[in-house]
Amino acid sequence: MGFASQWLLIFVVTFFTITTVSSSHKIPRLSPVDPRLRYQTNAVTTTVSNDHLKTFFYNQTLDHFNYKPESYATFRQRYIINSKWWGGAKKKAPIFVYLGAEGPIDGDIGALGLLPDIAPRFKALVVYLEHRFYGESNPFGSNGDPSSIKAMEESVRNKTIRGYFNSAQALADYAELLSHIRKELCAHDSPVIVVGGSYGGMLASWFRLKYPHIALGALASSAPILYFDTITPQDGYYSIVTKDFKEASEKCYHTIRKSWDEIDRVASIPNGLAILSQKFKTCSPIRTSFELKDYLEMIYAGAAQYNAPPTYPTTQICQAIDGANNATNILDRVFAGVVAYQGDGPCYNLTSRVSQTSIGWRWQACSEMVMPIGITSNISMFQSEPYEEKLVIDDCVNRYGVRPRPHWATTYYGGYDIRLALNKFGSNIIFSNGLRDPYSSGGVLEDISDTILAVKATNGSHCLDLLNSRESDPEWLVEQRNEEVKIIKRWLSKYYKSLPLLKQ
Amino acid sequence: MGFASQWLLIFVVTFFTITTVSSSHKIPRLSPVDPRLRYQTNAVTTTVSNDHLKTFFYNQTLDHFNYKPESYATFRQRYIINSKWWGGAKKKAPIFVYLGAEGPIDGDIGALGLLPDIAPRFKALVVYLEHRFYGESNPFGSNGDPSSIKAMEESVRNKTIRGYFNSAQALADYAELLSHIRKELCAHDSPVIVVGGSYGGMLASWFRLKYPHIALGALASSAPILYFDTITPQDGYYSIVTKDFKEASEKCYHTIRKSWDEIDRVASIPNGLAILSQKFKTCSPIRTSFELKDYLEMIYAGAAQYNAPPTYPTTQICQAIDGANNATNILDRVFAGVVAYQGDGPCYNLTSRVSQTSIGWRWQACSEMVMPIGITSNISMFQSEPYEEKLVIDDCVNRYGVRPRPHWATTYYGGYDIRLALNKFGSNIIFSNGLRDPYSSGGVLEDISDTILAVKATNGSHCLDLLNSRESDPEWLVEQRNEEVKIIKRWLSKYYKSLPLLKQ
Repeated sequence: MGFASQWLLIFVVTFFTITTVSSSHKIPRLSPVDPRLRYQTNAVTTTVSNDHLKTFFYNQTLDHFNYKPESYATFRQRYIINSKWWGGAKKKAPIFVYLGAEGPIDGDIGALGLLPDIAPRFKALVVYLEHRFYGESNPFGSNGDPSSIKAMEESVRNKTIRGYFNSAQALADYAELLSHIRKELCAHDSPVIVVGGSYGGMLASWFRLKYPHIALGALASSAPILYFDTITPQDGYYSIVTKDFKEASEKCYHTIRKSWDEIDRVASIPNGLAILSQKFKTCSPIRTSFELKDYLEMIYAGAAQYNAPPTYPTTQICQAIDGANNATNILDRVFAGVVAYQGDGPCYNLTSRVSQTSIGWRWQACSEMVMPIGITSNISMFQSEPYEEKLVIDDCVNRYGVRPRPHWATTYYGGYDIRLALNKFGSNIIFSNGLRDPYSSGGVLEDISDTILAVKATNGSHCLDLLNSRESDPEWLVEQRNEEVKIIKRWLSKYYKSLPLLKQ
Repeated sequence: MGFASQWLLIFVVTFFTITTVSSSHKIPRLSPVDPRLRYQTNAVTTTVSNDHLKTFFYNQTLDHFNYKPESYATFRQRYIINSKWWGGAKKKAPIFVYLGAEGPIDGDIGALGLLPDIAPRFKALVVYLEHRFYGESNPFGSNGDPSSIKAMEESVRNKTIRGYFNSAQALADYAELLSHIRKELCAHDSPVIVVGGSYGGMLASWFRLKYPHIALGALASSAPILYFDTITPQDGYYSIVTKDFKEASEKCYHTIRKSWDEIDRVASIPNGLAILSQKFKTCSPIRTSFELKDYLEMIYAGAAQYNAPPTYPTTQICQAIDGANNATNILDRVFAGVVAYQGDGPCYNLTSRVSQTSIGWRWQACSEMVMPIGITSNISMFQSEPYEEKLVIDDCVNRYGVRPRPHWATTYYGGYDIRLALNKFGSNIIFSNGLRDPYSSGGVLEDISDTILAVKATNGSHCLDLLNSRESDPEWLVEQRNEEVKIIKRWLSKYYKSLPLLKQ
């Protein structure tokens, strides 16, 4: 449990920082897990004690795509293996690999229960790979504590070092490291299934597409691989947030919708910002109404994204907003929503402490993972705030001195006309999505072929299928996970059948 | 015809240089075309006059996989378009793309007749892309003549610049450039078929696998994608050379087989090297018997590799060897073979002038394109000369200061258990091979699936299907090309059928 709490801490403090790249660059958190999970303690998932987890380090190539002398530098990449249930190389028992994303890998292990939950019935080895630059896998941090915030800050400030910090290099790390692990275990015939959520889900699906000779299949949970370039309308994300709140309560939706103008109105009267600070119990005085609105927007986005049973945060917030005692004032109602979501506290921090994740992802979002999320629609619950590429580019240039490459993701990974491209190409990918997750707007929601499948849960939220199972899990969630297991079983059984026929 | 002659010159002079990376590192030429083509003038291929070819330059990203400031540098990448037959973007007429390999692109155009020969019946646009660092697409050569040998020498000597000189970057160039071309032509729905031969054939198959959203299919001619790591036995190449000569004449095979010891014997007697120099009419005195043996080995390898109708060089050589007038001496017989192959001349150069190709490929072979070709078998026509990885690595380190990455090609591109990996993954690749081509030993010779197909010609040689068609072409060659056309037609017809159904 030590892992989980350490991890939760990281995500709690970073959740709100991420949005401040620029006012016109909304990047809601991509982490698989709700920061509010700290309030949920009824996990019944297989307990993974530290005894079963062994940590290793691999001397990873710094630059896979270059042959300068400095490209040959290596860094220590962390990976963790749980062999408790493995049937062994001789039996060609499978290897389930969790592809780390934008955070320390040990953080994810405690919360992502799907792999340890299903590994026993597959007799699978479970491997967790840490993404370069995060956790202890920071090439720049080898002289001090690589997992420190300072190390991440220094690597992202360093023009040369941060250049190596991107998804193609990370996938190549995984390819090289998995080849190494299979070789070490003499497990050349053990099929590999890669699993990831959110950004990690994108990596999982891309890994299957780019390295089919290493991974037999991929479970890509809540992977918004279509939220690049102009594939997905920029409104996708916030229109689902809006829908979630409308579904929770039409009245609540109207209250929130009206609250923005009210905040602006109060902010503009004499002493207005002080009134807002007092009303929202902010730990430090509010400097602009934008600050408060941004904070609230992110609460609603977070509630919608991690809108998980049994508590359903959007319902929680709306019940508080609708039921606020004697509160005729819109702002009092909205604040009641904040209290319901954040918990009762002496004061509320509108901005949070920085973390490895917030610093690292800001760079990734300013280089290649440019997701154009904005608000233009007037049916939205929010004030209009269109995505403006020029502002984003200017902000990134200003911050890092280099321009983002907003078209590179679709050039390297594809995305446009994905059914046309992949219907007769590729296989063995599950794109799982919860349709209440705002990121599902950029996900693959229809089957692409017989083996590239969309598994949807109408009431599901972000990466819910990957999380620890609970007594309280509704039937549809249990079924979603069962369906995923069934599909993976099918891949493996086909694989074992074809192995003697196709292996040369 | 200007292109062709310029090109031929380049290949003629470079053919023999390439093998001198080190004595234990045999790398027979990967070019699609026989240097001896200069003797064959009866091409009946569609004449591509310069009027139909338009040359363009694209500001290509220097480093696709890094975000350092210097990665953003660009270089001028050359490409050439022939739109004579194109049906246009509105009709979604296809685009055939020749992926340039280890030489200047204008050189290839004149000799590779398949594309202009078949383009009219597909109403296809024909595009030729030049590989980075070759021809005029040298990032280092922008201040002078980028296509000069000096520019190539300088780029390969420069530790930083040559780092960018590799296949993954070249494929990314092609992806970015093709996206650009389709955008410029508003041809988003025009299907792209990539075509390449030898190293370019490897690039074509890898491009389809890595960028299926950009290329609908690939024709990979004589692509030895399995000649990496330990997939193909090192003897593969020279055992086919041996077989070719044996098939041409058993007697000739025995003569050649015995000749090596005879050369060694003569070399060891007083004045022996002078005798050999005189006997083989070398332009400069032979310094070691190895020099002469290496020269002869490469003649036999070249004859086997480009063993094309109507002259069939192995037969030519063997007829000369077997029929040498009154020549009871083995060496006289062997020399008669040289004359038959090289033509009558005042003297013979054992080493040739360097070229862009020889310098560039030597670097590629010392960094990632490490093909372990050697001779261990005692049934071979040659003296034993096993591939020794350690010697190759030492030689490369000595030359460039960095170690090759001999396992990277199989990590990035795969190759082991290729049927297992691709039987249910990927589609639309033709691996065409001529079985008399020694490189076919590292090629894909069996169908992998219904749409990843092996097209073989028992009597075919290296990249023969891509070359200009001729009156003298045997029936089997005409059929091989027809089969390829039929397969490509099938891909396109499936594509056009699925377009309205699958495009979103």
